[in-house]
Amino acid sequence: MAIKKIDHVALVVRNLDDVLKLYRDVFGLSAGHAFTIKEQRVKAALLRLGDAELELIAPTDAESGVAKFLERSGEGLHHVCYESDDIQGDLLALEGKGCQLIDKEPRPGLAGMIGFIHPRSTHGALTELCEKPLPH
Amino acid sequence: MAIKKIDHVALVVRNLDDVLKLYRDVFGLSAGHAFTIKEQRVKAALLRLGDAELELIAPTDAESGVAKFLERSGEGLHHVCYESDDIQGDLLALEGKGCQLIDKEPRPGLAGMIGFIHPRSTHGALTELCEKPLPH
Repeated sequence: MAIKKIDHVALVVRNLDDVLKLYRDVFGLSAGHAFTIKEQRVKAALLRLGDAELELIAPTDAESGVAKFLERSGEGLHHVCYESDDIQGDLLALEGKGCQLIDKEPRPGLAGMIGFIHPRSTHGALTELCEKPLPH
Repeated sequence: MAIKKIDHVALVVRNLDDVLKLYRDVFGLSAGHAFTIKEQRVKAALLRLGDAELELIAPTDAESGVAKFLERSGEGLHHVCYESDDIQGDLLALEGKGCQLIDKEPRPGLAGMIGFIHPRSTHGALTELCEKPLPH
């Protein structure tokens, strides 16, 4: 396994602008900009915190996985993401050790190439791995 | 506000030894040791991940706040903790800006002097601040 650090912690929220305002104006975090990821039907923002980030995610429709999470559980902590130096190898290794993967292959995501592990295999904590692109 | 980084992400679990085994043997994280915090009626372990930690918490009786969380929500993500250079000042500032604090004064905790902010004030994400002791 090639996990080296926490890349981000993600919160699901209803209204991205309200929550960005909270973390900027009340908590004093560095301003992140909001952007829409059409294919995932979410708006998201990343706020830098040392060498990790706080990821805020809000659904843009009522049918996405994030919208269903919000409906079921309300706003709050959603997942934790660890940075790996070899996501392909790590996903294979996890599967080989009996973990149930949501993504069997890395796919492009907000944090680079990403893959989710089912919370059934991590005692309830939805867990993501990511690998950053090499610098140009 | 003097928040500088994510100090840790905390997961509530049923059986600490099982979950330590998962993060050590399957995820390959550095071995943390488990210890009991009698007054909080929990067993805990910290696993280092870059400049942050993964905190695992399991209740030692059925009455603690952590036990009630487990009963209500099951295993999973519990809180995120940000390191501050001035926890006393930050708790005061948050209260001044209308945040509802669980701890109005910093108190000793696993991560140094700590204080919790009510999830009602953070869109559902239970949030902790901590300040590390000065090195001897």
